[in-house]
Amino acid sequence: MTYDVAIVGLGAAGYTAAVYTARYKLSTFLVGVDEGGMGQTAAEVGNWPGEIDIKGPDLMEKFKKHAQSFEEVTFKVARVNSVAKDGGNFSVTLDSGDVISARSIIFATGSAKRHLGVTGEQEFSGKGVTYCATCDAFFYKGKDVAVIGGGDSAVEGAAIAAQVAKRVYLIHRRAEFRAEPYWIDRVKAKDNITFVLENQVKAIEGDTKVRSLLLEKPFEGSDRIQLDGVFIEVGSIPSIELPKSLGCEIDQRGYLKVDAGMATTVPGVFGAGDVTNGSNYFAQFTTAAGEGATAANSVFVYLGQK
Amino acid sequence: MTYDVAIVGLGAAGYTAAVYTARYKLSTFLVGVDEGGMGQTAAEVGNWPGEIDIKGPDLMEKFKKHAQSFEEVTFKVARVNSVAKDGGNFSVTLDSGDVISARSIIFATGSAKRHLGVTGEQEFSGKGVTYCATCDAFFYKGKDVAVIGGGDSAVEGAAIAAQVAKRVYLIHRRAEFRAEPYWIDRVKAKDNITFVLENQVKAIEGDTKVRSLLLEKPFEGSDRIQLDGVFIEVGSIPSIELPKSLGCEIDQRGYLKVDAGMATTVPGVFGAGDVTNGSNYFAQFTTAAGEGATAANSVFVYLGQK
Repeated sequence: MTYDVAIVGLGAAGYTAAVYTARYKLSTFLVGVDEGGMGQTAAEVGNWPGEIDIKGPDLMEKFKKHAQSFEEVTFKVARVNSVAKDGGNFSVTLDSGDVISARSIIFATGSAKRHLGVTGEQEFSGKGVTYCATCDAFFYKGKDVAVIGGGDSAVEGAAIAAQVAKRVYLIHRRAEFRAEPYWIDRVKAKDNITFVLENQVKAIEGDTKVRSLLLEKPFEGSDRIQLDGVFIEVGSIPSIELPKSLGCEIDQRGYLKVDAGMATTVPGVFGAGDVTNGSNYFAQFTTAAGEGATAANSVFVYLGQK
Repeated sequence: MTYDVAIVGLGAAGYTAAVYTARYKLSTFLVGVDEGGMGQTAAEVGNWPGEIDIKGPDLMEKFKKHAQSFEEVTFKVARVNSVAKDGGNFSVTLDSGDVISARSIIFATGSAKRHLGVTGEQEFSGKGVTYCATCDAFFYKGKDVAVIGGGDSAVEGAAIAAQVAKRVYLIHRRAEFRAEPYWIDRVKAKDNITFVLENQVKAIEGDTKVRSLLLEKPFEGSDRIQLDGVFIEVGSIPSIELPKSLGCEIDQRGYLKVDAGMATTVPGVFGAGDVTNGSNYFAQFTTAAGEGATAANSVFVYLGQK
């Protein structure tokens, strides 16, 4: 059979898109390798409206169950190896070798957070180590935390963390930041932000949760900083390989370029969520869901025109 | 005191914006006259991801409780009579005469659905009469329904309803539709859509719920159509009066014009939800929430620059 739409990605954007395409009675092939996507990594979510406090995996389970509740949705956990144009349709090849045919595609492939690659990072992931200061800073009221990185998300993250945390160490391997000047001015104006420059984290240490960082060089007489949370903000990599292989335009920041209706530059191909330049690059559960809904609506319109 | 931000509107967009501004530790004045906004009118919601079936008022209550859970949020049910620039800030005058000062504003004032103004319309509102075919058609599987109107939302609504309903009567007072030709072609291709043109609804009838429509002129020998649901799609009116009074640009369709960050053309003034031209005009809970979050992020950035 040829599906009306293939949705690639099992995060907030992909699940929401599937809820919508199913309600449009479009036969939907929903596929991805990473169930729950970035949302799965959020220890605590406080910014999904209506849920004052929910764990990321629990929220993503609710999304998945919703998408799966429709008979129109064929759900498959599998890696997509390649996509190709096939006449007016698209063929989606899974790592099993199976090939699925679809009349349209939504890429909700998300992005991957860059890791530091230091000792303890993986061990304490979700136990004090997270990759989104904007998402998680709120849970560190009155605590000491570190933000690691030198770009916008690190410096903005430090400013946000400083609104709630007792002390924020902003650790950057260079003397200068890549972030926009106003963000830098803003963190400089905060007296609870301590700059640790031209230094790097060698290891993240703790017991049942993070307790300290080991630095490469001593800072204020010690090579250890005691703290409760570490936000690693060293960038993210949008997963654009598949849409790029179809000829979709990628923007100057490396994200899948979409218009207001989440259409890419290739007819029949749409994007939603963190992989795109949508919602002003503000990657959140709410924006991913909104973009997934909008992309699904555009697929419905596109198939009507086709 | 001067609040960091005033959010005008108590629907999905306003509540979500408040959750985000609160998490940025911005003092937030959240005000509106219509608790729950358009969401309050949805008898059943099936497209808020994670909730397979929830009533609109229950979903909006969850949003409200979330916004109210933050000490940063001052919640007030009141009509905003006027807004004005006041030096670098804004003054917001309530109908009580109270004046609130804020450093920035988010307008999440929504839109009002146009009513037909016929007998029975109000009585059966939520009992078979609704104002969003896209939202509600799904609940009429195998039933007979009518869509009333001649624009894009009516014709698109009829196409969507025809995917699930047994029969769809598309009732329009003129012989020609204002909708885009491809939508018209699409509904013409559906053999379960019956066109009732140059005719008008005189009354909506029923008992505990809608049972029939009374037409102005007989159709196929009868001036009555038996059915289970009526979708009134005769347009909506974005509530742009307040942002317009501040000088914000309104787009050619009458919506508040916003950029990718939900900024209006007036510095310090942002928009979110159905009132704006955001999300390709696709007015949904998900898009309202995404826009509310994005607007809040932009307020945080704006206040940092200020």
